[in-house]
Amino acid sequence: MKIKLTLEYDGTNFAGYQIQPNKRTIQGELEKALRCIYNEDVPTFTSGRTDAGVHALGAVVHFCPPKEIKNKRVKDAINAFLPADVKVVNAERVSDDFDARFLSKKKTYGYRFYLSSCERPLLCGRALRVNTNIDIEAMKEGAKYLVGEHDFGSFVSKKSGKTNFVRTIYSADIKKVGEDEYMLFVCGNGFLYNQIRIIMGTLLNVGYNKYPPETVKEILEKKERKYAGKTAPAYGLYLIKVEY
Amino acid sequence: MKIKLTLEYDGTNFAGYQIQPNKRTIQGELEKALRCIYNEDVPTFTSGRTDAGVHALGAVVHFCPPKEIKNKRVKDAINAFLPADVKVVNAERVSDDFDARFLSKKKTYGYRFYLSSCERPLLCGRALRVNTNIDIEAMKEGAKYLVGEHDFGSFVSKKSGKTNFVRTIYSADIKKVGEDEYMLFVCGNGFLYNQIRIIMGTLLNVGYNKYPPETVKEILEKKERKYAGKTAPAYGLYLIKVEY
Repeated sequence: MKIKLTLEYDGTNFAGYQIQPNKRTIQGELEKALRCIYNEDVPTFTSGRTDAGVHALGAVVHFCPPKEIKNKRVKDAINAFLPADVKVVNAERVSDDFDARFLSKKKTYGYRFYLSSCERPLLCGRALRVNTNIDIEAMKEGAKYLVGEHDFGSFVSKKSGKTNFVRTIYSADIKKVGEDEYMLFVCGNGFLYNQIRIIMGTLLNVGYNKYPPETVKEILEKKERKYAGKTAPAYGLYLIKVEY
Repeated sequence: MKIKLTLEYDGTNFAGYQIQPNKRTIQGELEKALRCIYNEDVPTFTSGRTDAGVHALGAVVHFCPPKEIKNKRVKDAINAFLPADVKVVNAERVSDDFDARFLSKKKTYGYRFYLSSCERPLLCGRALRVNTNIDIEAMKEGAKYLVGEHDFGSFVSKKSGKTNFVRTIYSADIKKVGEDEYMLFVCGNGFLYNQIRIIMGTLLNVGYNKYPPETVKEILEKKERKYAGKTAPAYGLYLIKVEY
């Protein structure tokens, strides 16, 4: 038997998802909570690690419970031991075949930004400020070139350990999510290290008219990191959902 | 000459608006910033104080600048000295007749809440969690009885120094502001101490079917604090705007 957990977290005060000695991490807090409940170490497996500062609305984790506890009670029990900035929003029993990491089919990320002439306290650490003269329509236009199966070699951090950069993006669009607030939504079969943040940095260049939307296509074709925009800050990024 | 500032703040780490010795307050941070700019003490006057934990999207303050600085530069200069959780979102020169406190005609507050079976990390300190079985339509119905000129003696903290509790509420409605997220918007000519938080606590009783919407009318007529609901927590409350 396995249990699948869906986690929401505010990444601000975490050194990222993955457990690290002497650092506050999401995995660290989760495994500490599981140890309190089961009185033994319980390894957890995630749909994907997120960097320091990155938030999640629906990160997925699985683990094999050493003893049985009812679904509803598992969620409440874990939440009782978790701090306020990470919680289990759903817990369900899944078959032994389930694997949070290897069986994910689709992931959706969001990059949140707002138009303002000054930093906004209520969005601090939650969204990127951009200037009010940014051209959202041009950004939307640029995002369209990313859809499809491509080699995303221009959109991956040099620190990535991977060598195959071919991934499929099913959709990439910008939606209004509040007054002067927007979210870039990107859905794909999997993402490379810093991919969404580099995509965002590139679309910002389009929005600020540094180059036209079509340049996104050219950057893709070049397959070299140096042609894309800067890596946008971690705090605007949200792992929205993982589908199996 | 006077300058009118519009402030946004995240109230989480403040002991409220009003300056207090040895406490971190919004007024304290603002006056510290003004002292850095003008090299002297500059008194500020607000549209209204908010309690510890209460947020603002559009609190209004005025002050008399000891020397002239251009509008755009005043805003940037003050923001350069303010911490990330309070910023000036607008600064404008106003006539000497302007008074942030005594000339306000309308204030709009919002109380933000979300429906969930568990606390949500990304809304922690920003909105109140309510159970998913709450009846929003009944709450909307109850809110209607508050509209108009009434003696709000049932909806004021006993700590209020005031004796006249007659105020006018122009509108009171609940709107969906996100997935499973709602905001109670209340607009009036002025509010009593804890008024919106007690209104929210009372409407929660309606939503949880402790009494029908019509009971709000009866509670109003009784003019005694003990008949209304509990004071809802400060962290769900937002001062949205002040009109002159």
